[in-house]
Amino acid sequence: MESASPELFTVRLESAASQVEDALEKILNQEVRDGEIARPDRLLSAMRYGVLNGGKRLRPFLVIESARLLDAPPAAALRIAAALECIHCYSLIHDDLPAMDDDALRRGQPTVHIAFDEAAAILAGDGLLTLAFDVISSDETELPADIRLRLVSALSRAAGVGGMVGGQALDLMAEQDRPGEAEILQLQAMKTGALLRYACAAGAIAAGSDDATVARMTRFGEIIGLAFQLADDLLDVTSDAATLGKATGKDAGRGKGTLVSLEGADAARLRLASLVEDAEAVLSPYGDKAETLKLAAHFIASRRK
Amino acid sequence: MESASPELFTVRLESAASQVEDALEKILNQEVRDGEIARPDRLLSAMRYGVLNGGKRLRPFLVIESARLLDAPPAAALRIAAALECIHCYSLIHDDLPAMDDDALRRGQPTVHIAFDEAAAILAGDGLLTLAFDVISSDETELPADIRLRLVSALSRAAGVGGMVGGQALDLMAEQDRPGEAEILQLQAMKTGALLRYACAAGAIAAGSDDATVARMTRFGEIIGLAFQLADDLLDVTSDAATLGKATGKDAGRGKGTLVSLEGADAARLRLASLVEDAEAVLSPYGDKAETLKLAAHFIASRRK
Repeated sequence: MESASPELFTVRLESAASQVEDALEKILNQEVRDGEIARPDRLLSAMRYGVLNGGKRLRPFLVIESARLLDAPPAAALRIAAALECIHCYSLIHDDLPAMDDDALRRGQPTVHIAFDEAAAILAGDGLLTLAFDVISSDETELPADIRLRLVSALSRAAGVGGMVGGQALDLMAEQDRPGEAEILQLQAMKTGALLRYACAAGAIAAGSDDATVARMTRFGEIIGLAFQLADDLLDVTSDAATLGKATGKDAGRGKGTLVSLEGADAARLRLASLVEDAEAVLSPYGDKAETLKLAAHFIASRRK
Repeated sequence: MESASPELFTVRLESAASQVEDALEKILNQEVRDGEIARPDRLLSAMRYGVLNGGKRLRPFLVIESARLLDAPPAAALRIAAALECIHCYSLIHDDLPAMDDDALRRGQPTVHIAFDEAAAILAGDGLLTLAFDVISSDETELPADIRLRLVSALSRAAGVGGMVGGQALDLMAEQDRPGEAEILQLQAMKTGALLRYACAAGAIAAGSDDATVARMTRFGEIIGLAFQLADDLLDVTSDAATLGKATGKDAGRGKGTLVSLEGADAARLRLASLVEDAEAVLSPYGDKAETLKLAAHFIASRRK
């Protein structure tokens, strides 16, 4: 990857972010549709606030780039990307609630329950989660019914009790349970890994790829999910709140184990480097066409915030 | 309906309840499936507690009976019924939270956030909502992909910002907003009506019925939704907590308008009787085959708890 241009990655990431934000604006500003009765203003405002918050849009980027790699229709990929971002943002809104992680700041801004109130935050999360399935299943997502259905099914499993929601439940118990390495890996594979896996698999599913290709892209998502979490844990112990836009040192302060706290920062950095190599190897059959996704693996491993 | 047997209705309602509880048990006890990583015990327990709570299972009954009326496959209808009950129960769990309606009792039992904790209640709700889409989209729901997709799409709209979640948001604001009759009707059509409409439409969609039939069943669901809510508002002012298993007089106490508080109990009873006639008229093309659903309209209008 010596020859690869980090600028290409940045341009693609920003392009994906801007595309998906336009798509989310459109989806959230849509008139009442068939099957809907009315869309209450204040709830919609809380949903918009929780979604249009300047995130990096890494998951949408991964959907869009995996779709591009496998020649899935870009307009449909964009809708899947927007739906996935709805799920990601709902999970942040609920995780920030006082009964959960109790965070008042997210990306330097007041969290939804601070800017609105707790009830609005709970309902905005519920509304975004539900909307994600509306967006994918809608006829506006121009893919064959069986492919849309597969996307719905995979998303519901990635986001549900056996995936992200289950991971959050394990995370809340981690303060008491003091999990070991295997438990930490499982927790992270669920809490943050499941949606990243889905993001990469979704492009392949949307392209109508065969099972081996979907499995390959899922594996790529799994590896960058591990890298993402490891980088996050490193940032938690090495960065500061001003850079990160949220509180740091929280996991350590709460006694939640991370791989960094178990094995030390140096071991974590070595592991990160090896994950980047693995990610590149998985994509090697695609050659230069996969350059942006390979750069993404580097970015995820080396991010500073 | 002078000749109709109320026992038939009771038998069918109890049969639907017992079938759907078996289906829910199976779904919630399922091993980790393709796309899942692990299912944390405590979260699953909270989900089970929130679902297997002795409810009347009116929505599952309506799915099963509308499917029977239109000859949809019973096994698929049962899964749709179970999915819809997951949505209904998630909404109860979230509505009961301290930041929402702050209820400690539900059907005479401690609510999920009392029996577990608030975080578990939030996540159990999220998990059940997500699971509903898993259940419908899964290949285990043996319906053509385009029909399952339509069921997902309609459910997401009924349950989302333009339906149930939006209705709950309006309901929370009703204490301040003092809505008039039109606003109250809209709020109720969203908060409780949307899922009842879906319950009746789902049987037609599952049967692959034409649009006119789906519209007819949706209309039936709309009417019994109005009746359901009116009966509920009457119970709120005329029943007591011991009979109802939850607090009464709450809406009036909080200054939330209902049609009963605006128009009085007598006017509400007259309106209820006329809704039952409307419901029967909508189903008249089906003759005796619709007897159970017609009895359901009577039951909903005259229930005492």
